[in-house]
Amino acid sequence: MQNIQDKRVTDKIKFVQDTLYVINGKWKLPIIIAVYYGNSRFTDLKKCIPNITSRVLSKELKELEANKLIKRSLNSDFPHIIKYTLNDYSFTLDPIIKAMANWGEQHRKKISEE
Amino acid sequence: MQNIQDKRVTDKIKFVQDTLYVINGKWKLPIIIAVYYGNSRFTDLKKCIPNITSRVLSKELKELEANKLIKRSLNSDFPHIIKYTLNDYSFTLDPIIKAMANWGEQHRKKISEE
Repeated sequence: MQNIQDKRVTDKIKFVQDTLYVINGKWKLPIIIAVYYGNSRFTDLKKCIPNITSRVLSKELKELEANKLIKRSLNSDFPHIIKYTLNDYSFTLDPIIKAMANWGEQHRKKISEE
Repeated sequence: MQNIQDKRVTDKIKFVQDTLYVINGKWKLPIIIAVYYGNSRFTDLKKCIPNITSRVLSKELKELEANKLIKRSLNSDFPHIIKYTLNDYSFTLDPIIKAMANWGEQHRKKISEE
């Protein structure tokens, strides 16, 4: 391989790994999707995401908050209730979520036809 | 939430989780990218992907082969040399890889500007 191609490959790998690092694991994108569709409370999120435990949901929400993808605030009408909403920056993940949802849907069809 | 929206959310989460299940971890997409750019030998792949160990590369290649994303064959000119190529099905992952590479690149810029 020539050097120019080497750099193109390693750059692409590096950028994809950066993304994987932020959205790592199997829960962060599902949580973002659930919040996106209006689930703002912990109990709603837990109901919405199959098999997630409270401990894991709590840990993942903290990591998403630290990465500025999820905003944690108090409900203005019911100040004892915590609500989760998306930060503007989360919406930049939309092309990834769409591409993954499409692929997963096609993949499930393919597997069921085999 | 209404039931119709519930189903839309859980379907989307389910499809994204199917995809995450296939491309799980931090190595599978980088390996696919490296093979895509013409690295067909184990030693080339290892050089191309930062910090991957031989043991992990070997394990990940076996999983990708089992999922029919990577093809393992013998080089026709040098039959003692094993080469890795992409299956047609791997190319369907292209929109995901592109979206992730774009996001990672923008994210790195954003972080460096902060």
